[in-house]
Amino acid sequence: MAHNSFGNAFSITTFGESHGEALGVIIDGVESNFPIDEAALQREMDRRRPGANPAGTTRSETDKLSILSGVYEGHTTGAPIAMILSSTNQRSSDYEHLRNVFRPGHADWTYYKKWGNRDIRGGGRSSGRETSARVAAGALAKQLLEKRGIAVFGGTVQVGPIVAQERDWAHVDPILTCPDREAAGRMVALIEQVKGEKDSIGGVIECRATGLPVGLGEPAFDKIEAVLGHAVLSIGAVKGIQFGDGFGAASMRGSAFNDQRTSEGFLSNHSGGMLGGISSGQDLVLQAAIKPTSSIARAQQTVNKENETVSLTIEGRHDPCICARAVVVVEAMVAITLIDLYYTAFGRDA
Amino acid sequence: MAHNSFGNAFSITTFGESHGEALGVIIDGVESNFPIDEAALQREMDRRRPGANPAGTTRSETDKLSILSGVYEGHTTGAPIAMILSSTNQRSSDYEHLRNVFRPGHADWTYYKKWGNRDIRGGGRSSGRETSARVAAGALAKQLLEKRGIAVFGGTVQVGPIVAQERDWAHVDPILTCPDREAAGRMVALIEQVKGEKDSIGGVIECRATGLPVGLGEPAFDKIEAVLGHAVLSIGAVKGIQFGDGFGAASMRGSAFNDQRTSEGFLSNHSGGMLGGISSGQDLVLQAAIKPTSSIARAQQTVNKENETVSLTIEGRHDPCICARAVVVVEAMVAITLIDLYYTAFGRDA
Amino acid sequence: MAHNSFGNAFSITTFGESHGEALGVIIDGVESNFPIDEAALQREMDRRRPGANPAGTTRSETDKLSILSGVYEGHTTGAPIAMILSSTNQRSSDYEHLRNVFRPGHADWTYYKKWGNRDIRGGGRSSGRETSARVAAGALAKQLLEKRGIAVFGGTVQVGPIVAQERDWAHVDPILTCPDREAAGRMVALIEQVKGEKDSIGGVIECRATGLPVGLGEPAFDKIEAVLGHAVLSIGAVKGIQFGDGFGAASMRGSAFNDQRTSEGFLSNHSGGMLGGISSGQDLVLQAAIKPTSSIARAQQTVNKENETVSLTIEGRHDPCICARAVVVVEAMVAITLIDLYYTAFGRDA
Amino acid sequence: MAHNSFGNAFSITTFGESHGEALGVIIDGVESNFPIDEAALQREMDRRRPGANPAGTTRSETDKLSILSGVYEGHTTGAPIAMILSSTNQRSSDYEHLRNVFRPGHADWTYYKKWGNRDIRGGGRSSGRETSARVAAGALAKQLLEKRGIAVFGGTVQVGPIVAQERDWAHVDPILTCPDREAAGRMVALIEQVKGEKDSIGGVIECRATGLPVGLGEPAFDKIEAVLGHAVLSIGAVKGIQFGDGFGAASMRGSAFNDQRTSEGFLSNHSGGMLGGISSGQDLVLQAAIKPTSSIARAQQTVNKENETVSLTIEGRHDPCICARAVVVVEAMVAITLIDLYYTAFGRDA
Repeated sequence: MAHNSFGNAFSITTFGESHGEALGVIIDGVESNFPIDEAALQREMDRRRPGANPAGTTRSETDKLSILSGVYEGHTTGAPIAMILSSTNQRSSDYEHLRNVFRPGHADWTYYKKWGNRDIRGGGRSSGRETSARVAAGALAKQLLEKRGIAVFGGTVQVGPIVAQERDWAHVDPILTCPDREAAGRMVALIEQVKGEKDSIGGVIECRATGLPVGLGEPAFDKIEAVLGHAVLSIGAVKGIQFGDGFGAASMRGSAFNDQRTSEGFLSNHSGGMLGGISSGQDLVLQAAIKPTSSIARAQQTVNKENETVSLTIEGRHDPCICARAVVVVEAMVAITLIDLYYTAFGRDA
Repeated sequence: MAHNSFGNAFSITTFGESHGEALGVIIDGVESNFPIDEAALQREMDRRRPGANPAGTTRSETDKLSILSGVYEGHTTGAPIAMILSSTNQRSSDYEHLRNVFRPGHADWTYYKKWGNRDIRGGGRSSGRETSARVAAGALAKQLLEKRGIAVFGGTVQVGPIVAQERDWAHVDPILTCPDREAAGRMVALIEQVKGEKDSIGGVIECRATGLPVGLGEPAFDKIEAVLGHAVLSIGAVKGIQFGDGFGAASMRGSAFNDQRTSEGFLSNHSGGMLGGISSGQDLVLQAAIKPTSSIARAQQTVNKENETVSLTIEGRHDPCICARAVVVVEAMVAITLIDLYYTAFGRDA
Repeated sequence: MAHNSFGNAFSITTFGESHGEALGVIIDGVESNFPIDEAALQREMDRRRPGANPAGTTRSETDKLSILSGVYEGHTTGAPIAMILSSTNQRSSDYEHLRNVFRPGHADWTYYKKWGNRDIRGGGRSSGRETSARVAAGALAKQLLEKRGIAVFGGTVQVGPIVAQERDWAHVDPILTCPDREAAGRMVALIEQVKGEKDSIGGVIECRATGLPVGLGEPAFDKIEAVLGHAVLSIGAVKGIQFGDGFGAASMRGSAFNDQRTSEGFLSNHSGGMLGGISSGQDLVLQAAIKPTSSIARAQQTVNKENETVSLTIEGRHDPCICARAVVVVEAMVAITLIDLYYTAFGRDA
Repeated sequence: MAHNSFGNAFSITTFGESHGEALGVIIDGVESNFPIDEAALQREMDRRRPGANPAGTTRSETDKLSILSGVYEGHTTGAPIAMILSSTNQRSSDYEHLRNVFRPGHADWTYYKKWGNRDIRGGGRSSGRETSARVAAGALAKQLLEKRGIAVFGGTVQVGPIVAQERDWAHVDPILTCPDREAAGRMVALIEQVKGEKDSIGGVIECRATGLPVGLGEPAFDKIEAVLGHAVLSIGAVKGIQFGDGFGAASMRGSAFNDQRTSEGFLSNHSGGMLGGISSGQDLVLQAAIKPTSSIARAQQTVNKENETVSLTIEGRHDPCICARAVVVVEAMVAITLIDLYYTAFGRDA
């Protein structure tokens, strides 16, 4: 019931606003005596960082991560781990002119109606910057999964109408983490074009996990796809999620969709790595639909607090396509979910 | 952490197996003094019932609903409401030959590995029959929503390659609850054909809610799409969910996707009724991808407990397309989620 | 947030009213493949049963327990276990004259104000009969603990001013389960006297657990005494709980209270089996203060729904001292809590 | 299931160790647009501060509170509120000699066995310093309650054998917050004497709440005394809790204990402000048994990691009686529980 918390056995609580004093996350339930690789945590933070990516915004925030608790002499103690992020590039003045108007596609209107106030500094709590705290927790989750032989990784597989045809995960492109470098080149060119047109564009992120045991997921209501769905759909830009063949399954026959099996193993993976809501030992495959970034530098119609129609052009440095930076956020939420389900099914010592 | 429970302020717990003594649901958190319409509850049960639908199985179970607690003199008391379902048509012998073999596409294998046993009677806890308990709870949730002016309804909008083009909700077809009667005719014909070919086929169910206030959904992690995603993806046959334009948003530009607005209201509803994870007052629109039914009367390869490759043909009375009966289940999970979020945001007395 | 549920890894949900259709409990999270001893479950039910005890009421209900789900061929499957209790002795007419008046010491007034209605049939949901569902769950918890070498047992150690001086648990008296048979005789005589005077009397129940490992309890907020406190104080008649020396510690010095230790083990057990909120491997010792039964056959002042002062004499068959029957309820809540904490700390397979 | 979290509608999560980088608390669920009085928050922090109290330790930590999130322009926004505490007086070297030995009465042994490590810096997570984060949250809870006309206050009512006879809450003594100034003088003298004898002593803290509405508490399992019990028993030094007449009820008759009532109101308050687990509108009265401080400067027997018997004398600056400083912690946990139950029963806007 704490809505800024997620997870049971491995539980995270995030706090903080864009342009506030600090953002951070408390992680509760981490196994003890685990040697944290802090440098690796910071590297994950850097993947999400604006300015690191030519396809993203030109803002150059430094998300410097500090661990405040739960770690002693380099190892986890079993106590809650608090991590805090400090940002050094905040231009709150960019937002002052938005005090009275609701940006199209943004949370401005619903937050205002729900809570009766507005934190206009970069969207406050509704900002995508909140996801940096998730990335910090996800980075730790990945280390815990790695210890168990489980890898979580993803990339952009669609931008606008351009769809990746290959899945060469060993040679992803450096900008979109796309597993089809030829397609990636066209995707980046499209993003540049869209940016020039003061517009934005959507895409699809694919995330996979290998090395999973049979047994993750807790029917009836905490099936692996249900909990992963909760996790990934809690990312602001995500408008849909599918597993394995997903919506493609709608036009398939059972004889084609069912993953048959011999003593050698499964013959296909249409299900995306799960049966009956429980991981099957096959690779987890999911895709998230990413909407085009809401902030665009074109005039749009909207209303102000007096419900008068106004025209708004959003200036500032915004990502024309959020996929590049959102890959690590999707990976983080998947990793957080998987270690939570792992602890739940097998305990912290397994 | 009780994985057979779902929801917070309005919380359900289901129990029971296909072919067990009884299935049921406990609903905790219902407002007091609400006059329950028991006949309407039973009507919802009948919508899910096998045998009621020419597109479904020929089994003819009677899901007779009894209320055991929480209602006194026709009104809710505020105490937990227990509802129990009895079934009168159970052929356990149908399943005896499956004791040693794992059906493709079913939970058999993962349940066996996770819990070390098998309840072979119709799939036991993993059976779709578990959803009848959800329909009972959803039927009550609908009555509570109706009191608040909120309607939840849905229908089949795709079967195999046939996609509904219309949304004439006032004139849905009686078999698939499809809002495009012309398409519905072709869908039903396709299902009959697939059945004759001893195969099954997938589809897409759309669910909508009208009359929603602004304010449902609790960021950061309990955004309305996250909780609805959890709810709907916990239904066994669902392989994906999308909101508004969903995966279509991947190929859209921000200038097209953003729902602009004037003092008259929103000019479009690409978002599907939510902004920043909170209901916007527009209609909620979501779609669920339904996989083809796993049980088909064709020979398929699988393994037995000794991991020997075997060929399996599943006899029995199974639905060639589960969409017809799953509509009411999707509606139920959406209704349960919405009343839970409503209570959370506005309290039980609002 | 489901307030009729308790526990995390081993979670119970109770439903049902006194004089309703049925009472029951759903137990979620039970390990799979455990051979349930149904006869032993029923024996625990019989310990709580009214009429079984000369110190209790003369009502003679039969709490016949039925298992509806989660058990297959005598073993748990990992699915939720639903147990239902049927009662055969219900005199609802006994209560009709109470429809308009609030019984002193009872929940009548607060339930009416909170929920705006009254289920007058024996107190409805607030009746002590709700605890029979807890006893059913506790009986299963005891079997699961027994498998792990943990025993939970208790008895009456005070009735009115009479305090047990011995702790001869191998020879408890059959009426009050008092570990001091000499004192027990005087306690029973006092209860008879009080009954003759149309009054009731309070007491103290002690509960112990032996065989506990080090490690149960999850600081900071789920310390073993905190969770046990929650559990035991949720029993209607309990007005206080203490661990080890409890309130006696208030007048002790640290040099006397601290449990010193040598390589042979602890030299004392003032703490009652816990240190820093975690079980220490010593015996758990706790005591619960039981208030005198609220229903007495003497005239008392109270008010009716019109807030007029009225005099009320409660007829009917009521326990003059609830300790005799509450022992098994306290044991049940302790056992439920311990298996929950055990599963949490060590998993279901340990 | 996050064990460092407490509460549902008003939920706190604490983190941090004694002598770690920082301690803090995240508060989730606070109503929006509430004007926080930061100076009043700091005043509550100062009440718990060591060195502020002649009956306490001579350590003089400054618990300076900073708000990191959830507050904008002086008002709550509805986003999670993170508060962090910095301490300026930490002598970790005091503890180096304890690296290999387990202090009697402390969490050292159980923490070591449970998590396989030891944070020796002042007890790490098990330190009483963790309660400072609770006091911060409790201070906010008090402001929220005050807005609703509810006051929470408490004091020491017993130290060793000395028991307060008066309840003059308007004139409590400044050291122990004791409502009987005559007794307080003797209590303080006893504490001085005990300190001179290198010993410690226990006591009893009473906490009250006035102005409560009827309706707080959620049966069956979240009765007001159950949740308060959980809250208060999660404080390290507490060994028991009782409500109203508490253990005294054990020797009372129903005719004396029942709170009779006329149209003018209740005639007594033996129950301590609750009926059937729900607040009755009378004053809440509870008492917590406080054990003598574990750290004493006398030789005690204990074991080291090799399980060898050793003699240990704990030097350093420790409180001879923790009651003086624990009053504000008990008040905090009571206030946190009451606002949580208030939000649950009446919503955040009531």
